[in-house]
Amino acid sequence: MDDRYERGLRKLGEIDGKQGAQIVAALEDIAPNFARYVVEFPFGDIYNRPGLDLRTREIATVAALTAMGTAPAQLRVHIHGALNVGCTRAEITEVIMQMAVFAGFPAALNGLGVAKAVFADRSMT
Amino acid sequence: MDDRYERGLRKLGEIDGKQGAQIVAALEDIAPNFARYVVEFPFGDIYNRPGLDLRTREIATVAALTAMGTAPAQLRVHIHGALNVGCTRAEITEVIMQMAVFAGFPAALNGLGVAKAVFADRSMT
Amino acid sequence: MDDRYERGLRKLGEIDGKQGAQIVAALEDIAPNFARYVVEFPFGDIYNRPGLDLRTREIATVAALTAMGTAPAQLRVHIHGALNVGCTRAEITEVIMQMAVFAGFPAALNGLGVAKAVFADRSMT
Amino acid sequence: MDDRYERGLRKLGEIDGKQGAQIVAALEDIAPNFARYVVEFPFGDIYNRPGLDLRTREIATVAALTAMGTAPAQLRVHIHGALNVGCTRAEITEVIMQMAVFAGFPAALNGLGVAKAVFADRSMT
Amino acid sequence: MDDRYERGLRKLGEIDGKQGAQIVAALEDIAPNFARYVVEFPFGDIYNRPGLDLRTREIATVAALTAMGTAPAQLRVHIHGALNVGCTRAEITEVIMQMAVFAGFPAALNGLGVAKAVFADRSMT
Amino acid sequence: MDDRYERGLRKLGEIDGKQGAQIVAALEDIAPNFARYVVEFPFGDIYNRPGLDLRTREIATVAALTAMGTAPAQLRVHIHGALNVGCTRAEITEVIMQMAVFAGFPAALNGLGVAKAVFADRSMT
Repeated sequence: MDDRYERGLRKLGEIDGKQGAQIVAALEDIAPNFARYVVEFPFGDIYNRPGLDLRTREIATVAALTAMGTAPAQLRVHIHGALNVGCTRAEITEVIMQMAVFAGFPAALNGLGVAKAVFADRSMT
Repeated sequence: MDDRYERGLRKLGEIDGKQGAQIVAALEDIAPNFARYVVEFPFGDIYNRPGLDLRTREIATVAALTAMGTAPAQLRVHIHGALNVGCTRAEITEVIMQMAVFAGFPAALNGLGVAKAVFADRSMT
Repeated sequence: MDDRYERGLRKLGEIDGKQGAQIVAALEDIAPNFARYVVEFPFGDIYNRPGLDLRTREIATVAALTAMGTAPAQLRVHIHGALNVGCTRAEITEVIMQMAVFAGFPAALNGLGVAKAVFADRSMT
Repeated sequence: MDDRYERGLRKLGEIDGKQGAQIVAALEDIAPNFARYVVEFPFGDIYNRPGLDLRTREIATVAALTAMGTAPAQLRVHIHGALNVGCTRAEITEVIMQMAVFAGFPAALNGLGVAKAVFADRSMT
Repeated sequence: MDDRYERGLRKLGEIDGKQGAQIVAALEDIAPNFARYVVEFPFGDIYNRPGLDLRTREIATVAALTAMGTAPAQLRVHIHGALNVGCTRAEITEVIMQMAVFAGFPAALNGLGVAKAVFADRSMT
Repeated sequence: MDDRYERGLRKLGEIDGKQGAQIVAALEDIAPNFARYVVEFPFGDIYNRPGLDLRTREIATVAALTAMGTAPAQLRVHIHGALNVGCTRAEITEVIMQMAVFAGFPAALNGLGVAKAVFADRSMT
């Protein structure tokens, strides 16, 4: 368990930087065990697997969260994450636009709105 | 318009091979104009854009359709498409598994079920 | 209650013909009270309201069920219903196609597939 | 009808206290009949049925609204409701966490965020 | 292409008035090509088709966006659009209420909340 | 890890009996690691937590899967599971019916259809 937690925390830091630690901290007072699961399963197990590089994993996550449309806060985190692991602003915009085909124009428009806010946060606009 | 249609048809063939033509043909008797739109916007406009290679586009689409869980037939087509443009079986399985984190285990399990059927169709199992 | 049930049953028959009675009958052995609710609230309360004609109500329902993508059996029933209350095949096809904009191409393609089966059932193809 | 409305209003008060009356009041100027339906069908018909106690019904509702992810305002109301009918803070947190398995970690994280706000409103943190 | 863009822009103006231009402008700095697609495919292709009048198209869109529950900003735009093309406040309220049947009471309640804000914006309450 | 896997397997057996083993076996040839995750996180971590009894957990899961409407195969498994851990047929029917309020009548109708098939499998009808 410690091993999964440790390697999950490293992976979370690699993707989300300080934001990762903040997400975990925000859960500490309401559901500390859930904070542990968030580190262990998504980051310690899945994101640590060797079969896909982190850029591709973040592209897939940005695509899925844009298409689902129910998790704008997590989409924001993963657009930051995608940039942190080396995706370009253009690639992220491209994958969000592609979601218009599969989940409709509103999903893509809302995804672009989140991306625009992230790029502004990072002074990329 | 002809230009968009022509380049859409080429892109659709590049991704889906004969299946692309079948999808278009199946629409001809009920909604021929929609057959044209399917070629023009998703494939003539979006998939033809230069910002992402086809492998990355298909990874994003497989992720989104797995997470949405409402379009298993289209997921099947795009798993074939992903293989056609050079994604490996392992990469596709990896991205579907990752969706357990974002859309839940049932979405990932159902996506793996579709992938298993595609791999069997292509004698990859 | 009897009043709502009676007027719901009449409205259900107006929209779904014999299929309405079959839907109610199929629920009798598992959830007889739910069969009553299906008649009372959707058909006795909502569909009986004067503010929209039945054609417009069925257009709205076909749009929503196509966009949601989780209820193909109910979409089939309501495409039959739309035809029963006077919508044309062309109007139904049109509203399903429009859903590509709001819910993505897979939702519209799957809706057209359901419509195609309904039209074939009624020897409309 | 009066009977359904009366018993619905009592049940709504039992679950939501003053909030129930506020929800109904907020609808009065835009859709007064809908205010009546909200009281009659969900609370007068469904929640009044004898087969499940209110604690179990609220657990089921919190689970469903967390998993759907499209109705945070209603999730907030029903977390209050769950507490009002005797669920503990720990039970509510537990059922929301469980949704990570079925609807993904973002759904559970967003549900925990709503729960955290409700617990704070009630000075439970 | 110019033709599709021109007729899309006219249709968008017919439905959304100045808001249409604002939506396009908001996309210019992040995804100018997507601004073009929004004009061309939804408005230049789909909404320009002759098979359904604009009132019916907007009823269908309001129904779908209410049922989906993931796009309140676009629902707001299309409730404005529905009013602009001649739907009455009563018709819009009616179609949103109907969605309680197909997508649940929270979807209808949230849709009514958006409608209430639009009516207030237009001093219709 | 072995500990989580062992206790997950026991919990899965407690809920799903032989079906649990079959689910794991079906994944072995396509994604053996995912078979392990299914045992470890949902059953070894979440379902093993002490805060809710298994009957309540299965009620919550049946509610969520009915409301989501995208996972009928997993709903079938968890209706079996609910019966295995002591929920009655009446309780399961009740919770599915309740979902009509939150996710619409089609979701509840489709959930009742799955339940009917499960009850028939177990000669409960």
